[in-house]
Amino acid sequence: MSTKNITITPIGVVIAQNGSFVIEIFKKYRPALLGLDGFSHIQVFWWCDQLDNEECRSITLADKPYQKAPDKLGIFATRSPERPNPIALTAVPALHINHEEGIISVPYIDAENGSPVLDIKPYHPATERIKKVSVPGWCAHWPQWYEDSAEFDWQAEFVNA
Amino acid sequence: MSTKNITITPIGVVIAQNGSFVIEIFKKYRPALLGLDGFSHIQVFWWCDQLDNEECRSITLADKPYQKAPDKLGIFATRSPERPNPIALTAVPALHINHEEGIISVPYIDAENGSPVLDIKPYHPATERIKKVSVPGWCAHWPQWYEDSAEFDWQAEFVNA
Repeated sequence: MSTKNITITPIGVVIAQNGSFVIEIFKKYRPALLGLDGFSHIQVFWWCDQLDNEECRSITLADKPYQKAPDKLGIFATRSPERPNPIALTAVPALHINHEEGIISVPYIDAENGSPVLDIKPYHPATERIKKVSVPGWCAHWPQWYEDSAEFDWQAEFVNA
Repeated sequence: MSTKNITITPIGVVIAQNGSFVIEIFKKYRPALLGLDGFSHIQVFWWCDQLDNEECRSITLADKPYQKAPDKLGIFATRSPERPNPIALTAVPALHINHEEGIISVPYIDAENGSPVLDIKPYHPATERIKKVSVPGWCAHWPQWYEDSAEFDWQAEFVNA
């Protein structure tokens, strides 16, 4: 049973244009935003629809994706959008919510304009914020906190950037 | 285009029986685990297939789900499994990976036995661990760290537990 395909219906769309970033929630799902305002951050689950093709979804190994990574790295050891199910997850501050229009304003999101949104969850420290974390040597120099990542030169990390 | 249904193919299954919890990755996806071992924690994306029905997926409001919550709370302001797309996300330590058998051993996961697994990502502090977080008053007494949540009486929080 568990190998059966699953159907996801988008609940909204990422609108990323002219340096502005918002999540638009479709009308029927807008009541579900009630009470989200009190959270400083949300998790946006979105779909890399541009990579939703057989070729990208059959990739299991990445060729040295980062400067210090091994020559071959499994896709589940990366956050690459080229993966069997291209679900992307972005934690981001929710700056403002317009409930009537279904608009969540965010400072930035690493999604293409028009990307389907699958789910929105509140960021709870109790389930998401881990005190004692360790990572492999090849990314041990990456920032240890979300807030520090803005200052980091990510471009320099990617081998084929 | 973005309202088009999306097809997800399970990459594995949660096996939760006799107090043991593992993620079994299906054979064709096992190479994608290469290099995951160095991460202390992973994010498991799984599907609440038992709630994948029209009734549960049409719910947008929850009736006072927690002791101190408002009388009505939007589903996107909760991590309830009853939601339009019942994608669940669990951050968890990866205790051991058997690459040949495709088995990731975890200490615990809040999934029913047999739940389909959609994706595995490494937990990177740079993208997931937020220093300055705030939450609404009704859950401000919840633990502020993942590690502290094990000591917390979650059962007492749920209104209909």
